[in-house]
This record gives sequence, structure tokens and C-alpha cells, in this order.
Amino acid sequence: MSVTLEDARRVIAAAERRADEIGQPMNIAVVDAGGNLVAHVRQDGAWIGSVDISISKAWTSRAFDIATKDLGENSQPTQQFFGIHATNNGKVAIFAGGIPLTQDGTVVGAVGVSGGSGDQDQTVAEAGVAGF
Amino acid sequence: MSVTLEDARRVIAAAERRADEIGQPMNIAVVDAGGNLVAHVRQDGAWIGSVDISISKAWTSRAFDIATKDLGENSQPTQQFFGIHATNNGKVAIFAGGIPLTQDGTVVGAVGVSGGSGDQDQTVAEAGVAGF
Amino acid sequence: MSVTLEDARRVIAAAERRADEIGQPMNIAVVDAGGNLVAHVRQDGAWIGSVDISISKAWTSRAFDIATKDLGENSQPTQQFFGIHATNNGKVAIFAGGIPLTQDGTVVGAVGVSGGSGDQDQTVAEAGVAGF
Amino acid sequence: MSVTLEDARRVIAAAERRADEIGQPMNIAVVDAGGNLVAHVRQDGAWIGSVDISISKAWTSRAFDIATKDLGENSQPTQQFFGIHATNNGKVAIFAGGIPLTQDGTVVGAVGVSGGSGDQDQTVAEAGVAGF
Repeated sequence: MSVTLEDARRVIAAAERRADEIGQPMNIAVVDAGGNLVAHVRQDGAWIGSVDISISKAWTSRAFDIATKDLGENSQPTQQFFGIHATNNGKVAIFAGGIPLTQDGTVVGAVGVSGGSGDQDQTVAEAGVAGF
Repeated sequence: MSVTLEDARRVIAAAERRADEIGQPMNIAVVDAGGNLVAHVRQDGAWIGSVDISISKAWTSRAFDIATKDLGENSQPTQQFFGIHATNNGKVAIFAGGIPLTQDGTVVGAVGVSGGSGDQDQTVAEAGVAGF
Repeated sequence: MSVTLEDARRVIAAAERRADEIGQPMNIAVVDAGGNLVAHVRQDGAWIGSVDISISKAWTSRAFDIATKDLGENSQPTQQFFGIHATNNGKVAIFAGGIPLTQDGTVVGAVGVSGGSGDQDQTVAEAGVAGF
Repeated sequence: MSVTLEDARRVIAAAERRADEIGQPMNIAVVDAGGNLVAHVRQDGAWIGSVDISISKAWTSRAFDIATKDLGENSQPTQQFFGIHATNNGKVAIFAGGIPLTQDGTVVGAVGVSGGSGDQDQTVAEAGVAGF
């Protein structure tokens, strides 16, 4: 089981609607069960530095089956995973905006959002998950 | 002048239709005038190794304002650009499938396609350009 | 809209004058709207390790449309963007010295300065912006 | 002994004049005796993919004290240095456009030019050397 391109498009469409509502253009990426990119969009005016981060957030969420927001809390200095952001050739994102996509209790992919504050990225990612 | 997300989606839709016609699932990427990713899709069943290649082809076509097929002919052993594939941190693709997107004679972005033979990638990329 | 080489040279000249005033040789880089390098100079005696940092600061300021000083405040441990310095293949600089260049309210490029203390880099970058 | 920023600017100015004469916008880079970047310019309209290549050509010419055109002839398949373009993290350029800068028989830096055909890059680099 893994997300299809159709699934990814539904997730992205839901996320885009939420980004439009809050008025913050975003990068939105979806990866499959293998952690590989299925689809990405950068809304007009969204940060170019967030292309990479949106994909990294999606990858991280699938790679560790966890929301990047939660991983981030465990990855601060003195916490158990501090330093994880430098592993995997720097592909691990440890701030809000990445969330696993689950089906019948199994992680089948993930969505990653980047382009605003942590709170903005998180709410847009949650909208994407709800659209799945 | 640069491609918008709406432009990118039109290019990708046209490329997908061509990929469906020839029965070969593809990765399709579009970059803007700055070489930065605007959108990417991987059709179901398309090679995961082609995610990176489709993006590299699009980037290369904008970075040198040339189709990757033509760049490739100049980049074979003993040709004037041999070795270019190792520059830019390996982001230069020198085989068919990347084509600039032009508007009023100016390159405003590029499309990159990867997932099949060189001929297949090329025809799908050409369909994407026609859709622009 | 994007900075031209002439713009970049004016920014660099203004920054160099300020660096001379404070007696600290600097690396100064300017990128365009796409985040791509337009010009760079290393003043005689400036740190060779700052070549890369000046370019990264300029890129970061354009990539996120923000001064690197401000991004840095949000990227400390426990802050919302902690870990961002490891994204984008390590190209994100999160200390003072990078500032966007704007025209009619739009970011059209950025300047990055590296070679001294944070305060020194910042004042030289600010002089560059004023020269634009 | 090493090139100064003033030297680099003189080299670049001479190279730019030649690029203007042949009507091909170029990236021009100068490195010092340590192989470290002293200055770079991208003329308006020059390829963004050539930023990296111009710097790599300059670095290569100093790193091996040889014109990249000559190194290239020794780096083709079956030749003695074939594969060298993949060493040094891909920073070795093996096509025309990079030339050492010498003073009293000693290499004190190098110029690298990228933005046109091999012949065009070479003639602009030679003009830069003549300006030194």
C-alpha cells in the first residue's frame, strides 16, 4: 500500500486551499511509502528555499513515521535525537510541517509543507492530511 | 517573466497525456526562470530514480538555455563540453528529455521528463512544451 | 525584475567602502531574483572560508525573503526553524550579513557579506543595500 | 605571490570587453594562488549553469597549473587522466576556458570563463590573461 499520484493531488489540493485561506503561498510535497517524491507544487510567490524543505519534511515524516513537529521536540540540544538533522545527508527536517499519511493504521506516505511560520506550515499540512 | 504554477500544470497535463498515449509512466518537472522547481509529478509506476533526473533535466535546460538532447551531443567524449555532467554538483543532465520553455523569444523556464527511453522522454517533453 | 550586473557592482562598491571604513576586509556577494550569483568579490586579506558564506548569505536572504540575522533568531534551539541550517545542502546561513534587495516592494535579489564579526558583516551589508 | 582583487578586476574587465566584442555574455571568475575565489561576475543574460563552471575552470587551472583545454585533451576516455572530472567533488573542469595566471614564471592564480562555445570561452579567457 502506497499513495498514488491521484492521492497526492487530492492532498495537495486540500493543502493549497488552506494556504490560500491563510494568505501564505506554500511549497507542498507528497512522498510515497518508499519515501520517494510523488508530487510537488510551489505556489506563486512561495519561497524558493522551501522547495527542498517541503520535500525533506515529507521524506522525514515517512522515514521515521512521525510528524516533524514531534521529531523536532526530541531533537533539540540535550534531547535524545539531537544531531539527527545532520544525518541522511541533511535530508532530515526537524521543524513543523511534515505529517505521515496513514491508511488502516499503516503509514503509506507523507506530506511536507514549507513557506511560512511553523504554525502556518503545520495547519496547511494538517489540511492536506484531512484531504487524504 | 517566469512560468507560473498554472503554466506548469498545463505543461505537465499535456506531457502526462502523451505519456499515457505511449504507455510509459513518467516523472515530469517544471522549473522557473531562476531554475527553481515549480512543480513535479511522478506517474504511478514511474521509476523512482527518475525523480531526480526529471528535475535535473529541467534545471539543465534553463541553466544553459538548451535542450538536454542538444547539450548531450556536445558533451560526448572529445566534444567541446565533455565533462559538463560532473559540474554543478552533478545536476547537469546530458541526455534527451529537457527542453526550455520560451515566451516571446525569452527562456522563462523549462520542462524535464524522465522515465523511459531517450526517445520516449523527448516526445513527452515536446508534448509538454506544446501544451505551454 | 531582477538585479543586473551594474546593480550588483553598485551594491558591492558601497559595501566595500564601508568595509574599508571599519578596517575589516570582506567577501561580498550579490544574487539575483532566482538566487543565482551575479557577482562576488573578496577584498585582499579577507577570509577564504567566507567566500562560501557570503554567497550562502545572499542566497538565503533571497530564498526566504528575509535578513539572515532575523532568520537566525528564529533558528536557534527550541525556536520554530531550528535545523533549517542543515537543509538545502547546507546552503542556508543563519547569522547576520545577508539582506534582501527590494524594488517597489518586491525582492529582486540579495547581498551577502562575510569576513568579520556579525555586527561588522551586518553594517557592511546594510551599506550595500543603501547603495542599491 | 598571489593575484590581488585589483588584478582580478583588471583580468575580468579585459575578459568582459572581449565577451562584448563577440556578443556572448559570460561568467568570469578569478582565483588566487590558493585556488580560492577572488572575484566573479555574471554578465547580464549569461547562463546560470555557468556560474559554477567558470569558478571550477579557474580552480582547475590553478589546481593543476594547466589550461583546462589542455587538461581536457589528456582526460578523454583511454587517455592518462580520464576520470579526473569526477575527483575533487566534481570541481575539476576539463573543457576550454580556464587558464593559469603567471608572474615571473610562477602560477599566482587563474581565470575561468563559461557561457559560450569552447572556442568562445577560450578567447575570452585569453583576453583576460592578456589583461593581467
